[in-house]
Amino acid sequence: MATSPEARLQELGLVLPAPTRVPPSVHLPFAFVHVVGRRVLISGHGPTDADGHLCGPFGKVGLDLSAEQAFDAARATALSILADVRDVLGSLDRVGQWVRVFGMVNAHKGFTGLPQVINGCSQLLLDVFGEEVGRHARSAVGMAELPWNIPVEIEAELLLRD
Amino acid sequence: MATSPEARLQELGLVLPAPTRVPPSVHLPFAFVHVVGRRVLISGHGPTDADGHLCGPFGKVGLDLSAEQAFDAARATALSILADVRDVLGSLDRVGQWVRVFGMVNAHKGFTGLPQVINGCSQLLLDVFGEEVGRHARSAVGMAELPWNIPVEIEAELLLRD
Amino acid sequence: MATSPEARLQELGLVLPAPTRVPPSVHLPFAFVHVVGRRVLISGHGPTDADGHLCGPFGKVGLDLSAEQAFDAARATALSILADVRDVLGSLDRVGQWVRVFGMVNAHKGFTGLPQVINGCSQLLLDVFGEEVGRHARSAVGMAELPWNIPVEIEAELLLRD
Repeated sequence: MATSPEARLQELGLVLPAPTRVPPSVHLPFAFVHVVGRRVLISGHGPTDADGHLCGPFGKVGLDLSAEQAFDAARATALSILADVRDVLGSLDRVGQWVRVFGMVNAHKGFTGLPQVINGCSQLLLDVFGEEVGRHARSAVGMAELPWNIPVEIEAELLLRD
Repeated sequence: MATSPEARLQELGLVLPAPTRVPPSVHLPFAFVHVVGRRVLISGHGPTDADGHLCGPFGKVGLDLSAEQAFDAARATALSILADVRDVLGSLDRVGQWVRVFGMVNAHKGFTGLPQVINGCSQLLLDVFGEEVGRHARSAVGMAELPWNIPVEIEAELLLRD
Repeated sequence: MATSPEARLQELGLVLPAPTRVPPSVHLPFAFVHVVGRRVLISGHGPTDADGHLCGPFGKVGLDLSAEQAFDAARATALSILADVRDVLGSLDRVGQWVRVFGMVNAHKGFTGLPQVINGCSQLLLDVFGEEVGRHARSAVGMAELPWNIPVEIEAELLLRD
């Protein structure tokens, strides 16, 4: 792709939220983005508002949220991931290859449209990074519960450029 | 092991299904098998028929399927994984080492026999690749929902030979 | 950190259980700890007693166990992981970097305090390995069912020292 991810983000008119912030009362003793050599491990993220706080709608997909709302939540989660990745790496242009996306949906009983929900994340990665760098392996599955009752949680891995 | 995985597959009388096919109406913007350097990331797979289409029995293990049927579904899922791996790599003989199997069971309330179900995958990998190359880390867990109500979904990783 | 993980373990007065043992009737065809080059993949573990047997309290967190009991179970699971890691590597001092912790809670309907539970594992890793080596990416999520009805299952990855 001719354009860089940062340039593409601008072309698409996308603005990243602030890096993820947790309430001061919550102790989370791990790294949201963990760089190990060329590997970058991304902890489970949820959808955030512009200030980086986890935001609603909260609840079960198929009950409290429609599939369309959950798609939007997965897309917001991807933007939250990109915000934290940029915060740690300095620029999204340092991303060499997406590796894996593990998409977890807070599924109401009987809601099986999980791939369509996680497409909100996958499609954004492809839009911003292009078909090659954005390419990733993926699972999209339904969880019994997620922290703070967020509708979607996504864990991922990418590789830095050489 | 003296025999290669491809030769062993023949000895065992195993025939792989066609590579996984999704209904034309379904958009899945990710790679079923994603090669990143020597690492091969395998997206969540389910059991398929000979033509590569996801196949039944569908539903909850412990309700719609017995543990034995779910074992067979996990074995069929492993064969589906091998079909996609061969499709991308050209030959199973390029596999140098299995790394990780993440086995997810569509568990009915109270069904905890998850390891015995995922053994259907693990045992097949050991049979085809032998104790060394087929060796893998594994988790076997119960999900709230899986896509299209498949009974088993398996994500995995392997390494190419040097 | 000046002190080594093995020395720190002693300072903290922590005694590791025996390596994980499964009942003779159970066939588990995979490696609890799988070394692949410098990567060490750790299969899903649960809390064990001093003899290495899976131990109670069993059941759903938020129903059969309180959040505090589940925190203790996550901490016991981390100790069980360390026991198996030491068993395979010979010494915890060979650990160069923790990479990823995937914390799965056997969640009762409506129990969303999953991060606080998995803190029982994360905090122990940081206490024993220090802020740098113990640093890890993490997800903490709620499963529908876990094997043998254990309250917590943790999968992880680390890197060996150069």
